[in-house]
Amino acid sequence: MYLDNMSTADLEAEHARLEAQYAAHQAAGLALDITRGKPAISQLDLCAPLDGLLGGDYTASDGSDTRGYGGLDGLPEAKRLGAELLGVDPGAVIVGGNSSLTLMYLYLMHCHHYGPGAGGGAWRDTQGGARFLCPVPGYDRHFAICQDLGLGMIPVAMTGDGPEMEQVESLLTDDPGIKGIWCVPKYSNPSGEIYSDDTVRRVAELARRAAPGFQVMWDNAYAVHDLGDAQPLANVMELAAARGTQDSIVLFGSTSKITFAGAGLAFMAGSPATLASFRKRLDVLTIGPDKVNQLRHARLLRDAAGIRALMRRHADILRPKFEAVQHRLHEGLGNLGLARWTDPAGGYFVSVDTVPGLARQVVALAAAAGVKLTPAGAAFPHGHDSEDRNIRIAPSYPPLCDVDRAMQVFVTCVKLAAVRHKLGR
Amino acid sequence: MYLDNMSTADLEAEHARLEAQYAAHQAAGLALDITRGKPAISQLDLCAPLDGLLGGDYTASDGSDTRGYGGLDGLPEAKRLGAELLGVDPGAVIVGGNSSLTLMYLYLMHCHHYGPGAGGGAWRDTQGGARFLCPVPGYDRHFAICQDLGLGMIPVAMTGDGPEMEQVESLLTDDPGIKGIWCVPKYSNPSGEIYSDDTVRRVAELARRAAPGFQVMWDNAYAVHDLGDAQPLANVMELAAARGTQDSIVLFGSTSKITFAGAGLAFMAGSPATLASFRKRLDVLTIGPDKVNQLRHARLLRDAAGIRALMRRHADILRPKFEAVQHRLHEGLGNLGLARWTDPAGGYFVSVDTVPGLARQVVALAAAAGVKLTPAGAAFPHGHDSEDRNIRIAPSYPPLCDVDRAMQVFVTCVKLAAVRHKLGR
Repeated sequence: MYLDNMSTADLEAEHARLEAQYAAHQAAGLALDITRGKPAISQLDLCAPLDGLLGGDYTASDGSDTRGYGGLDGLPEAKRLGAELLGVDPGAVIVGGNSSLTLMYLYLMHCHHYGPGAGGGAWRDTQGGARFLCPVPGYDRHFAICQDLGLGMIPVAMTGDGPEMEQVESLLTDDPGIKGIWCVPKYSNPSGEIYSDDTVRRVAELARRAAPGFQVMWDNAYAVHDLGDAQPLANVMELAAARGTQDSIVLFGSTSKITFAGAGLAFMAGSPATLASFRKRLDVLTIGPDKVNQLRHARLLRDAAGIRALMRRHADILRPKFEAVQHRLHEGLGNLGLARWTDPAGGYFVSVDTVPGLARQVVALAAAAGVKLTPAGAAFPHGHDSEDRNIRIAPSYPPLCDVDRAMQVFVTCVKLAAVRHKLGR
Repeated sequence: MYLDNMSTADLEAEHARLEAQYAAHQAAGLALDITRGKPAISQLDLCAPLDGLLGGDYTASDGSDTRGYGGLDGLPEAKRLGAELLGVDPGAVIVGGNSSLTLMYLYLMHCHHYGPGAGGGAWRDTQGGARFLCPVPGYDRHFAICQDLGLGMIPVAMTGDGPEMEQVESLLTDDPGIKGIWCVPKYSNPSGEIYSDDTVRRVAELARRAAPGFQVMWDNAYAVHDLGDAQPLANVMELAAARGTQDSIVLFGSTSKITFAGAGLAFMAGSPATLASFRKRLDVLTIGPDKVNQLRHARLLRDAAGIRALMRRHADILRPKFEAVQHRLHEGLGNLGLARWTDPAGGYFVSVDTVPGLARQVVALAAAAGVKLTPAGAAFPHGHDSEDRNIRIAPSYPPLCDVDRAMQVFVTCVKLAAVRHKLGR
């Protein structure tokens, strides 16, 4: 890092300069928040006509009245939307309520206490306890579900092409207690990478090495969330079907970052065996989803082209914010050796790695200067980043000027933490 | 019964007459369905303006944008609605998605695998298996949840004033494995009774006799669903709070039979300890409920007066159907000793008890004549009515003329089953 070549006097001067810069940020009385991947108000406004869109016509394409009970799988037109998003047949889709997280929780609860359709029995009966592979950095709420169900978590490194597949494969071969893996295959949260074709193929083949009932939790939350041109992702379900491993793949998605974050539609998709098995739980725990909201969404989004057109408008709002993050990081930290960061082509996050041991301090410094960052370590199981270096930046929600300002503070904090560390302070 | 005093010749004549009547029903090619407690289309139309009501204003009373994530407990104005329905403080309410059944399932799953806030640990660790008291006849979906979680079910008789409380109390004293009881305290499904003040008080006191963690699942699904004047129900939470047993009472309700059956709001309410404990699960399984739909409901229903006014309009639609049921039962079966039935002042059901051993045959006869009834035994744990006598009539959904026609067929089937039985055919 750039501090390594400095004389003590230069270091002291740099330190004084950064402390002054930091004090100036503090004096500004900021209250900025770049903690979570939430759409901005201006993005929510893109779908403002959603309420009222039905114009009193609550009848679905199959002639059913969406206001009534029933329809466990969801409306046909909503299943078609989910099928477009997840790259499967509409018949492979279940449309839930407003939260794909809830579908994931319920599905893993189902596997844990009753066992997946793929066989192998209830995970909770696994000798030594069932375990899950968790590519890191990853999504904190995935890990929270594992923790809540008592599933052990085994971290696996990310590579830029997805999880380190050799590590994944050898872990699976050695340990029959491993029951599944979390995957956010496109614009992974938070590292932004897209799984390569080779990675997707190898994921589709994992069930061959694993004990029966192994499940790939394929959370394609950012399937159409490109900042520029649409980026391709290999179709994991097609690859799995061709290999006879389709019962190991469960896909999830939602319109939370397409329409309304808290009032969208959630989708899951899987093989006939997977869906039949999960429906046993669904059938007990609900009489059916909110089909009125499903109809609203189907009428608004219509089809893949409708989704694409809307996502281009989202990208127009998000792109400048992501550009501001890159600009400030390059300007402030470029070639200093203090940090590496991702420059994703979509999704909701930029992942920054400081030099080891500084992430928590950077987050604390930023907080004390009025910039709220995701807690350091949040992207790791149990919130523990053993190297204490990863910080997730979520620039989507605040206005552009706030993102820009927050990143200036962030850059100062990274440098200040580094020089303090160098000086042993 | 009236057949007991007949000569063999008279019996044969009655049999021939009923077979002819039944054949005439069959020849009519009916396709009628009085199986489930669903609001009629005309009832759903009462709230047709729900979609579009927001007029583009998605801001809640607390200034939050309802389209975004978050708000685990629900909007303040939606919590107030739930509080009105359940007779508790708004702070005691959690507003869920569209299904109170889902809240009940999740809450019992929470108690079973993690343990309720009231203490006593996870139910699944109960020696000999955890058990639940199930007043019968009761709601099939309650029993299905118990079955799914592996909770044993102990039937308890209903009396007209609620469950047979002496039986309940003595079972609890003897058996520490009993972890809870199902209650539909007003217009109980399907028997229509309202728990008496004495019953409610004794329910509030049950936790004193039970092992720690005992839970009363108080499903007040028909709290404001009076066919005529509003009928009172003692406030179980107030009674419990006065006795220090508030942690044993969990209340549920919904707007499924107030606004839209499949797209309403679900509520649960409980003590601070109960809610704090359950929020540990909620916090993992969702980022928050659909607050846009909560806002729609709060703007439409406004307050207790708004709900009452709407419920009077529902009653105007439902009352003639319930009257038709009573009319046809009295006209066809009055004083014959072939059946007893309820005449509820609200709710969605009429419960008929035939003479023992005939319910399944009556349901089968009706089905063969084009009238679909709820399967005999559905109101009992595991679908097993040991006396084979209970049949649930749900007259809300079909048009009045269909209800009237279906009840004529029903009456014929009850009489035909009885005379066939008498003649050993």
